[in-house]
Amino acid sequence: MSELISAVRVTPVAFRDLPLLNSVGVHEPFALRTIVEIVTGSGLYGLGETYGDEPHLRRIERAGTALIGTDIFDLHEIRRRVAVSLDHDDQAGGHGMAGMVTTSSTTDRVLSPFEVAALDLQGKIVGRPVSDLLGGAVRDRVSFTGYLFYKWAAHPGHDEDGWGAALDPGGIVRQATKMIHEYGFSSLKLKGGVFPPDQEVAAIQALRQAFPHTPLRLDPNAVWTVPTSIKVGLQLDGVLEYLEDPAAGIPEMAAVAREVPMPLATDMCVVAFDHLKPAVRQQAVGVVLADHHFWGGLRRSQSLAAICDTFGLGLSMHSNSHLGISLAAMVHLAAATPNLDYTCDTHWPWKDPEDDVIVPGAIGFENGAVKVPVKPGLGVELDRDALARLHQQYLDSGIRNRDDTGYMRRVNPDWKAPRW
Amino acid sequence: MSELISAVRVTPVAFRDLPLLNSVGVHEPFALRTIVEIVTGSGLYGLGETYGDEPHLRRIERAGTALIGTDIFDLHEIRRRVAVSLDHDDQAGGHGMAGMVTTSSTTDRVLSPFEVAALDLQGKIVGRPVSDLLGGAVRDRVSFTGYLFYKWAAHPGHDEDGWGAALDPGGIVRQATKMIHEYGFSSLKLKGGVFPPDQEVAAIQALRQAFPHTPLRLDPNAVWTVPTSIKVGLQLDGVLEYLEDPAAGIPEMAAVAREVPMPLATDMCVVAFDHLKPAVRQQAVGVVLADHHFWGGLRRSQSLAAICDTFGLGLSMHSNSHLGISLAAMVHLAAATPNLDYTCDTHWPWKDPEDDVIVPGAIGFENGAVKVPVKPGLGVELDRDALARLHQQYLDSGIRNRDDTGYMRRVNPDWKAPRW
Ligand SMILES: [Mg+2]
Ligand SMILES: [Mg+2]
Repeated sequence: MSELISAVRVTPVAFRDLPLLNSVGVHEPFALRTIVEIVTGSGLYGLGETYGDEPHLRRIERAGTALIGTDIFDLHEIRRRVAVSLDHDDQAGGHGMAGMVTTSSTTDRVLSPFEVAALDLQGKIVGRPVSDLLGGAVRDRVSFTGYLFYKWAAHPGHDEDGWGAALDPGGIVRQATKMIHEYGFSSLKLKGGVFPPDQEVAAIQALRQAFPHTPLRLDPNAVWTVPTSIKVGLQLDGVLEYLEDPAAGIPEMAAVAREVPMPLATDMCVVAFDHLKPAVRQQAVGVVLADHHFWGGLRRSQSLAAICDTFGLGLSMHSNSHLGISLAAMVHLAAATPNLDYTCDTHWPWKDPEDDVIVPGAIGFENGAVKVPVKPGLGVELDRDALARLHQQYLDSGIRNRDDTGYMRRVNPDWKAPRW
Repeated sequence: MSELISAVRVTPVAFRDLPLLNSVGVHEPFALRTIVEIVTGSGLYGLGETYGDEPHLRRIERAGTALIGTDIFDLHEIRRRVAVSLDHDDQAGGHGMAGMVTTSSTTDRVLSPFEVAALDLQGKIVGRPVSDLLGGAVRDRVSFTGYLFYKWAAHPGHDEDGWGAALDPGGIVRQATKMIHEYGFSSLKLKGGVFPPDQEVAAIQALRQAFPHTPLRLDPNAVWTVPTSIKVGLQLDGVLEYLEDPAAGIPEMAAVAREVPMPLATDMCVVAFDHLKPAVRQQAVGVVLADHHFWGGLRRSQSLAAICDTFGLGLSMHSNSHLGISLAAMVHLAAATPNLDYTCDTHWPWKDPEDDVIVPGAIGFENGAVKVPVKPGLGVELDRDALARLHQQYLDSGIRNRDDTGYMRRVNPDWKAPRW
């Protein structure tokens, strides 16, 4: 059976998204992703999923072409070819990322869906789930966090969505109640950085009152100054499981960490291997949120996990808006990572269940967790009709780059990125 | 095909060794190893090789029993069961290691041969060399270092061996000349800590004169004080590729590192994941010598490699006296480790070519390097007659624990461990 890559298919897709607010604006009506298929001579295919922004999509296409003829077991050669394909990358322009992890490694971001697809294929050939290729599942269910967002009741000009508005503590508690009811999550995270800190502190305190025993996290996406971060950290002593990225930058996070009682978590100041040495040296963070989409795939995310274990850092998992292929990859990685100390983030509840590219039924939530697929590979199959539909949605949406800020300004022309 | 472990066979063996001198005494006439075979229901077997000292052998036997029924792809479960088998380990007594890496992790030392054997079996089942299971070989040949030792001309009471004596600079140069002639090594390491530092500096300078362009290393096994280490480091400025473990302890190595011009390497003060954080914090070493035998196998050695890459540490490879299974494992690991910055150590030239447990011809040296086996698994097969012969040698030798010091004192009753 040939195990050389004979073809790579790259398909941008769009899926409906809700008006979730964050520090750079608001989610547009559609979120973008890129679906990667690699095919070997045997006709088997492996799946990967990544960001959909145009510069990134161009890089993925270029890297995909460079991988023809590569052995799917040769992950080092796949990485080498991806890196070479990115040489002289200036013309691609932009990081292909929206605001949050722009300093991550371009090579690792582009590598990720190909590595995942190669492992999917390896698993199919070997007859083993991807978790087995990562050293074996240490848990058969992976727990996730209910990821709360301030949001509008609807996209402007649209009917109200099923979630309604959440613009104050009461709205956030209602959202949490619905999300826990529907998904069974047993921990909660609030995406902050939207309202002045006092209002977000009040929302966390309202969540604490409503859910006295539920671990809580707050993530203002680094829009607070060091003094504000310290003030909020002290206010929420004993309330937060961790405080995520209150301030921007490793030295600034270190300054906050010295003064607040809870661990600081990050998916902004430590998003590449290069950031680990200064972060460890400066004791800037206590928890790293891994994300295979920008840490170079599942094996390299396991290297990150080993580093966290070795240097006494806690490990959690970051999420962007994603589809089922990414969910499967996240679940295999989480299952095969012994030192995953915290429940994982996911945007899953914000996605319309009708919008996906995989055959339904393979993966889903129960009691706040996802069962680890046991079929060979990732355990999910492509639904080609659905892929075509979401690709058409991509074409029709007109969106080519995620632009939370631009969308916000079309609604509120005076909107400015906050800084408290 | 069943992939559950149905049997584990553990066989201690002894092979002839030469009177190599070091800081704790002299190598005995036989070196000990333990050969591990794991067998699955399908009848396939996987091979591992580890230390042969009695407390270690007992732990290996106990762990082996605990692994019956484990899936060979479930490396996390294998490690968990090994760890459980070591609970209440006090009665085993002793670290089962001779002097050098006694602070390594017992779990990782015991895990190692089972992890290697599981990967050997995975490779056989998948039809892939172990290097492919480690992400793919980035090199098809792995280069090794000529490992020079001060030595007697013969074991007391025996005929002179083929290498002759090496007790002064001239002897070391003669040994290097012969070893390079026979094996083609293009770098050299001298095991020091045997004679006063001035004599060992003179030996290195003689090597430099005889081989002007050959990278040189000196390893006195941490028997020097900090001032002596600094003095030697300054004397050998521009001569040594690295200075290995001049002084004992992370703070002491850090004190030396601040004053000497060359990188300090270690396989003594950083021999377990627990040591990495203090070593990095204190900037104690520039190079870590990995060794899958005490770093918990090949995958965990790759984690170590990722840590070295991330924290700016160079990576080299340590060796004890070993047979062909270990050589194959070392070669697969080295091949699949992109950031292996230095040629690897091996004791291979000191072993009688007749003494091994593998079918001859699968692996060997050419121009100072070993070709990476491309057959499934490790690429070496057990020679059961040879295994029986080396096991008989073990029984006949009477040696149950490596004891370089005891052997030295039987020859020189007044011998004391040096400290300069
Ligand atoms: Mg975050
Ligand atoms: Mg050494």
